[in-house]
Order: sequence, then structure tokens, then C-alpha cells
Amino acid sequence: MHNDDSIRIIPLGGVGEIGKNMMVVEYRETIIIVDVGVMFPGEHLKGIDFIIPDFSYVIENKDKVKGIILTHGHEDHIGALPYLLREISAPIYGTRLTLGFAKNRLEEHSLPQDPVFHEIKPRERIEFEGIVAEFFSVFHSVADGVGIAFHTPFGIIVHSGDFKIDYTHVYDSLFDFYKLSEFGEKGVLLLMSDSTNSENEGYTQSEVSLNESLYKEISSATGKVLVATFASSTHRIQQIFDVSSRTGRKIAILGRSMEKNIELAKSLKYLVFDESMVIPADKVESYDSKEVVILTTGSQGEPMSALANISVGKHPLFNINENDTVIISASVIPGNEKAVSEIVNSLYRRGASVIYEGFREIHTSGHASQEELKLMMSITKPKYFLPIHGEFRHLINHSYIAKQIGINMSNVLIVKDGDVVKADDKGVSVEGNIPLSDVGIDGREVEGIESPHLSERQKLSEGGVVIIVIPISLEDSGILQPEIFSKGFVFSEDEDTLFEKAKDITFEAIRGCIRDGGQSKNQLKKAACDSLQKFIHKETKRTPVIVPIVIEV
Amino acid sequence: MHNDDSIRIIPLGGVGEIGKNMMVVEYRETIIIVDVGVMFPGEHLKGIDFIIPDFSYVIENKDKVKGIILTHGHEDHIGALPYLLREISAPIYGTRLTLGFAKNRLEEHSLPQDPVFHEIKPRERIEFEGIVAEFFSVFHSVADGVGIAFHTPFGIIVHSGDFKIDYTHVYDSLFDFYKLSEFGEKGVLLLMSDSTNSENEGYTQSEVSLNESLYKEISSATGKVLVATFASSTHRIQQIFDVSSRTGRKIAILGRSMEKNIELAKSLKYLVFDESMVIPADKVESYDSKEVVILTTGSQGEPMSALANISVGKHPLFNINENDTVIISASVIPGNEKAVSEIVNSLYRRGASVIYEGFREIHTSGHASQEELKLMMSITKPKYFLPIHGEFRHLINHSYIAKQIGINMSNVLIVKDGDVVKADDKGVSVEGNIPLSDVGIDGREVEGIESPHLSERQKLSEGGVVIIVIPISLEDSGILQPEIFSKGFVFSEDEDTLFEKAKDITFEAIRGCIRDGGQSKNQLKKAACDSLQKFIHKETKRTPVIVPIVIEV
Repeated sequence: MHNDDSIRIIPLGGVGEIGKNMMVVEYRETIIIVDVGVMFPGEHLKGIDFIIPDFSYVIENKDKVKGIILTHGHEDHIGALPYLLREISAPIYGTRLTLGFAKNRLEEHSLPQDPVFHEIKPRERIEFEGIVAEFFSVFHSVADGVGIAFHTPFGIIVHSGDFKIDYTHVYDSLFDFYKLSEFGEKGVLLLMSDSTNSENEGYTQSEVSLNESLYKEISSATGKVLVATFASSTHRIQQIFDVSSRTGRKIAILGRSMEKNIELAKSLKYLVFDESMVIPADKVESYDSKEVVILTTGSQGEPMSALANISVGKHPLFNINENDTVIISASVIPGNEKAVSEIVNSLYRRGASVIYEGFREIHTSGHASQEELKLMMSITKPKYFLPIHGEFRHLINHSYIAKQIGINMSNVLIVKDGDVVKADDKGVSVEGNIPLSDVGIDGREVEGIESPHLSERQKLSEGGVVIIVIPISLEDSGILQPEIFSKGFVFSEDEDTLFEKAKDITFEAIRGCIRDGGQSKNQLKKAACDSLQKFIHKETKRTPVIVPIVIEV
Repeated sequence: MHNDDSIRIIPLGGVGEIGKNMMVVEYRETIIIVDVGVMFPGEHLKGIDFIIPDFSYVIENKDKVKGIILTHGHEDHIGALPYLLREISAPIYGTRLTLGFAKNRLEEHSLPQDPVFHEIKPRERIEFEGIVAEFFSVFHSVADGVGIAFHTPFGIIVHSGDFKIDYTHVYDSLFDFYKLSEFGEKGVLLLMSDSTNSENEGYTQSEVSLNESLYKEISSATGKVLVATFASSTHRIQQIFDVSSRTGRKIAILGRSMEKNIELAKSLKYLVFDESMVIPADKVESYDSKEVVILTTGSQGEPMSALANISVGKHPLFNINENDTVIISASVIPGNEKAVSEIVNSLYRRGASVIYEGFREIHTSGHASQEELKLMMSITKPKYFLPIHGEFRHLINHSYIAKQIGINMSNVLIVKDGDVVKADDKGVSVEGNIPLSDVGIDGREVEGIESPHLSERQKLSEGGVVIIVIPISLEDSGILQPEIFSKGFVFSEDEDTLFEKAKDITFEAIRGCIRDGGQSKNQLKKAACDSLQKFIHKETKRTPVIVPIVIEV
């Protein structure tokens, strides 16, 4: 592919978008992959479960892939791993908890061969041909996160992972000031840094600052307390255990992903709590409601979550009433606002006290704000800067911060997924682009997002479908009276009348088509479709999807 | 209907939701309607243009309706007027600008009879049988807003309209402290007050405070400035004219609704600017880019707006480049976050400076925050309190504020649309409920929102549709080989193979059904549908909508 003596860095995801983080670091015959994440699609991609990066480039170069490094255990960094491992095979590097999450993720899939895991520790160095990867610990909302310093012939290339700087960390995962300043002292050629919160001024609030507010809310609660957060937010979960213990409450864990993650994190000692604190969810009713905290997911308004069911009084085990308190300890991911608001309304209707972001301090982000991003740049003193992990707006705002810090703007690279960033003796620059197409996972199928059926679904969702069946007699090539059916279209008294008229008009259009010499099925279908579409739009101002079916009988 | 001597207040919309505000105030043989608004639906109501209140109650009592009062000119207060005037006839009361907006809205509709308009001024009193409505001015994001005091035999009932308290108002529309305190002094039986921002602490920032920040942004801009805001935000538009004038820039107005509203507000003197400031949109390119401001809509990411087209370089008149500045002077309505974010990204990609909320101070809300809500309560000193205009969460939070103010909580009524609030000598209480169903406007049709076709559309949008046509021979009652068609379903190479198998399996299922004595079309359809659904789910893990069609040939 490329034979010149340079490092090639190719983001396959996560640059110009939030999610599906994946990056290729290539040098001569070596490719190292950093992260293999998924992205959850917006409303416009109907029925797609999630989106994964386009693996074509690494599949074409599969023999060069020497390792897959996972920076931390979030879905947008590890979620697409099972799909990649169907195509290529390489050892997987990650910290203990990150590998634990990855193994859980892989369990649900059958793979062509058993994956090989290499557990790494911060400050450990892994030698690949020509490149050494050195890990440094960073703080993030999930424990055991790392960034990576690639020691290359052309200088040090730093990948921040996802991070914030939390001086009063709740558990381990210190931000490794020493290592990063050492890199800075030696000379960092290129810094690639997390842009997610680059629009936020100041500092991101410390995780520990929530301890007192959670204590205040839980200790003053007069009944059951239900706390909803992400199943992967290990630090938050630790705090909820700590505060529950301090207030003398037991904890019931609700939901498969919450149970599974807590079990994993506890077994690996990333969560520390007394086993006697945990009570089975179906025993909650036998405790005094003031002695119980229920820990669950559903903070994004997921319609099938326990929280959603509880909010409408349809959970088999719990009822929420006017003595109870619900704490939603998470921020709302853009696109989920309406769903979360509906749950908040329903909980209020049941009389519960509801505590959520913007209202009380019960959540803080896991990503660095502007002042922390400045610190990262100031400590590593990079010659070149490449903002990663963010939409275009976040990358641009991160570049403004670099400018404030005094980084030469001609050394700031704003790239998009697929751009090839070349680093060598002469510096760092963008050289060309690999065309990518998003890949959607929908049920079992892996398919291109651009496929026409997705825009068809969009149209179906807006106007429903009208089906016209046109029977042709094989014997005399005569046309029989068409039949019309619909789904998701009008539902009013005059639908029958409308369709009767439509049948006549379409029948006439088909006969006209035949009179004018139309013979093929496609000509008949087009004539039927056009006349029906026009008629329906005239009568109803709507544009359903029309399916003309010609059937030989 | 009701013969006892009491006032009945029935919110038909806007209580327990944001939007479609409408309220009935009834006394003996008199009904006064306050506002007739629309609501824009969420993503779950596919293809519905907007939702209007259920008019059944006022249609049943149409002879009693003596007047329709409009508090201000926003769509969620006047938008459903054309649909109501198809059904009932009554004089319409409103201030000059509000009636101007209402007339514009009605223009597009043909009505059974010409509506009668009564222009009112703040402090004017309109006598209805047994009730006097007195108007007081309030400040809101559109000019000429009013609240209403109903003088009734049982005391004064105050309806706040939509309001904020802005000491440094940009134009007219003072908050009428005197009138409200006079009502308080005389004794307010019931206050009904705007809850939209009841979750916001402190005060809502003054509209005038934006003047300096808009000036700062526009005066420092090096090229064209494009400002996007709501076409109805007259105060904001005035400020944009003022700042443009101060910076020596001309204004081009882009978009039909913006043009129409500015023309109206200027002709009624609610906007004051020198005509020579306005240049035609198609002449912008002949001016130095530093001399131009383009004023347009599209702040909510509407895909057909000029702003959306400009952001992707597809506008016939303008290109945005790296010298230009785009100011989005509006907050994002929940549900529109993704669309707005996409436009911001696209504008950044074109190199423009983009200025939006959360980032710079270029927008402020038109609704009162907690301290202003306290002021409203403190000045009117109501005996009973009914929070209106908000989702349940906002009503509840508004009731907490009432508690802080010292209002007796047993005198706070949290109601929902359709609840009947009765006020008489004994006080105010909820007595029963009128069942309501939302009405959706979809093309020309007015229909119930609960109709099954909307949930069908949802299903269609998630999995597409698979149609199976089963021909039955009328001659020998034999079944012919079925045909399968699809829209928005799989699109991969093995779709044909899948459908070939599906045909065989369904054919077999139908024959089995007949062998077991199944004869009716419905039995055949059910057998076909069940077997096809099961097969498709097994093979693809998906659940498209299945349409079985039995056709006699």
C-alpha cells in the first residue's frame, strides 16, 4: 500500500461525529488499531440498532494488524469489536476492567476463533515493530481508562483517550501528570485529544462533588430511593453504594446490564462494597422503604427499561408513590430529551420527588472542559495538534482553544473520518483520504447505511403505504379490476369511497396505457402508480408510498 | 349542562403539555374562550403536521360562546383558530398586532363566514354577561401580549398569558405592575400563571441585555452576518435592525414568514426602522459583504429553511464562506437538537464563524423564571393558584414555588386538560372531567390521534413492509402460488432466496390451514401472516409489517 517511511494515522470513526471511535496507526508492515466502537443512530435511521465503522481498510490489510488497543470499556470504544473479529484476528490489549467489559460484549457472539487478550497496566510499554505503545492512566466516567503514547521514529504521538481531569478522584485512575509532562519534555510531535466537551467553558465538575449532593438527597428522602445511571459509570455506582451505606440503606440492583457490570467491576475490585448491602430486587417490598435504594438503568428514557415501566406503574416488582424519590444521575444524550421528559412527567404524576440534571447537582460529565483541554496541551506541548472525538463543531472549538494556548494554527489539523494523516521527519500533514461508508447493524444483517430501504422506511413513516394489486389474465391478456389496500394511511369514514374512486381512476389509467401501446409489467406499474399518486395527493394532500403489484392469474 | 351558579374553567389544551393552549371560561349562558393554539408533534406522531385541541365541548355549546380572546400572536395560542371557526362563530378579541397575526393565519383558509374582530387595548374592559374581561399588558417575546383579569361575582380570576418581567423592555408591552397590584389589593380568587420556565432558577435575562452582545458580534464580523431567529420574535427583530443600523449594515429579509411578519409589524408600528435599510435578497451580492445582515428563520434546523440550504451550499442566492458569521438567536426546542447541531456542523465546514446559545449570549427566553413567578404571585396575592402552560413537571415545580411564597398547598390545583375547575362562593375546586382526544392535522384531514394508522406508521418506519399476495381461483377454490413484495425491508443479495423460501413456507401454511378446515379469507390471511412473520423473524431477527392480501381471480 504505502512504502514510504512514515507513520499513517487514519481515523475510521469518531472524528466529525460522536461515537464509533476507531483509529488506525500504521508504520511499514504494522497496523495498530485504537478502539472499535459503535454509534447509536439518530431518528433518521429507522430501525437501525447501531452503526459500526467501515472496516474495509483493515480487512484489506489484515495481515499487518498486530494489535487492537482499547482505551476504556464504553460501547463507543469497544462495541463493534465482535464485528471486527469476524473479519480479522489480532491480540486485544486493554486494562483489566476494559477487557472485562470487552469479554462480556464478545460473549453474545460466536467468533471464527477465540480472541487473545493481553491485559496491560498504565505505564506499561508494548513493543510493536518500529513503534512502542506506552499507556498512561486518565480519569473518565468508567474506571481503568488509559491514553496511549506512541513512541515512533519521528517523535511521540499522544492519544488522550476519553478523559477529564479530576483532582479528587473517587477511586483509582489518576490522571498521570508525570508521564504526560515527561512526554512533553521529551517532545511530543502530535497530540490527539478528546473534543467532546470543547464547547464547555471552565472545568468539568469533579465526580466527588456529587457525593455530598447525593448524600443530601438520599438522606432526606422519606421513602424508597431509585437511582438511574449508566451501567458503565463505575465511579458513580461506587458513590451510590457509599452514600447508601452512609445513610443505612440496602441496595437492590435492577436490570441485566447493571447486574452484569457491577458483578464484573466488583470481582475485579473496581467496585468496593459489602456484599451484605445488596438485597434481591424481589425482596425490596419486605424492607422498610426508608432502608432501600434501587439502582437501575433507563436514564435515557429507554422505553423498555425498568425505570420506564416503573414510571407508568407497570413494573412487576415496584410501585413508586408520593413518599419515594427518583434520582436521574446522568445527562440526557441529544435526541433523548422527549423520552426522558415523558418519564419525568410520569414519575411526577405518581407523586414521586424527581431529581434530575439542570435542577440539582446530581451528574457531572466524564469529559474535559476548556480549561482541562488547555492543561492537556500545556503539559504535552505538542508541535502538531489533531482534535478527535467530536462533531465538526467540537473539533473547531477545540482548535480555537489550541490557538489560545499558542499552538501554531498551521500545525492544527481538522480532519474527518477516512483522512490519512502522515507523520514523518518533515512534520505532520493530511495526505489523501480513504472513502468510507457507514455500516448499520439491523438484526443480524450488516449493511450499508445508504441502502434505499432506509429512505423508504422514512417515507413509510410519514405517509404509510397504499398497495394496488392489478391482476392480468394470462389467457386473454385482459386486465381485471384492481384492488387497493393500505397500512398507516387514512383511517376515516370515507376511506372506502376514496379507494373506490381510486380503483376506477387507476383502472382507466392502465387501460389508457395499454391503448397507447404499453405492454410491459413495468409500464403498467408506472401508469398505475402515477395516476394513483396524483389522485391521492389531490384528494388528501398526502404522499403515501405506492406499491403497484401486477399479478398474472 | 350545568345550572348551578358557578364559574367553570376548563383547559382544553396547554395544561400538562407545552402547546395548543386553549381554555374555556363559562358562567351561566356565557362561554369565553382564551386562546386557540396548535402543538407541534414529537417524532412518535409520524406525518402529523400539528395537533389542535379537541373542540367537542365548545361545539356542543356553540350558542353560549360569546367571544374568543387571544393573549398574543404565537402559533401555540392562535394557530388552531381556522379549525375552530369552521365549527363555531364568535367575535375575536385581541390587541392590534395579535389580530394582525391571526388575520394572516386565517387568510390561508376558507371559512363558512367572515370572522368578526374586536381590537382591544390593555386596560380595556369587555363586558360579557355576568363577567367582565379586563386586559393588562405583559412582556413576551412577541410584542403586544396581554393577560386577562376576569371580574366575576366570586372574585377576580387572573390569567397571566405567556410572560416574563423585563424591566428594560425594548419596545412597548410593559408589565402592568399597577393593574396587577390593584387586582391583588381588591382580592384575587384565582391566579392561573405561565409555568414554561418554572424549572429555571433566578430571573430570565432581559431582552435588552442582548443588544450589546449582538452589537459586539456584528460589529466585529469581517463579512456577511446571517441572523436566524423566529419570525414572530418582534423584539429580537427590532434589536437586529437597531444593531444593523448602528453598525452601518443593510438588512436583507429572507423567507416568506419573516417577510410577512415584518411587513405586518412595521405597518402597525411594532417595528420601527428606516425603509432604506432593507435591500432585496437578490441584491446582497452587489454590496460589500461587511455592509450586510441577512435576517432569516430556520433556527430550529427546519430542513427546508434558507438557513439549512445555505449551510450545505445549496441556496440560489447566497454562499457562506470563512469571512462570514452566522448567529442563531434562538434556543433549541427539545427534539430539534440533532437537526440544529447538523446545521452548525455544516456551517463550520463552510468556514463560517457560528454563534449559538450556550456558547455566547445571543438569546434569552420569553418566559418568566422562578423569581419572576414569585413576583407574579406576590403582587396578585391569589387565594387559589392554578399553574398553566407547561408539562406536568413544570406545573409541579410551579406549585413548589407557590409553596415557598406561602400559598396554602390545599389551594393549589394541579389539573390536566379537560378537568373542570369550579369557582364559586365556597372557593375553587376540581369537579369532574371532560374526556378529550387530541386531533391531528395531516394534509386536509382532521382526525383522532389515537387512530391505528399512526402506530402502523411507527411500525412501518422501524421494519418496513412485506406484502404477500395469495391468489385464490374462484373456479375451483384452489390456491395459487403466493407472491411476495417489500418496501423498506432487507436490501441484500439474498433477499430473493429469502423470499423464495418464504413463499414455499407460507404456501404450505395456507394449505395446512385449508386442510384443517380454514375457509374464510381472514383465516387464510392469518395463517399466511403468522407463518411469514415467524419465518422472517427467525431468519433476519426483524419484524416488518406483514400485509397479507387474498385476491380472487
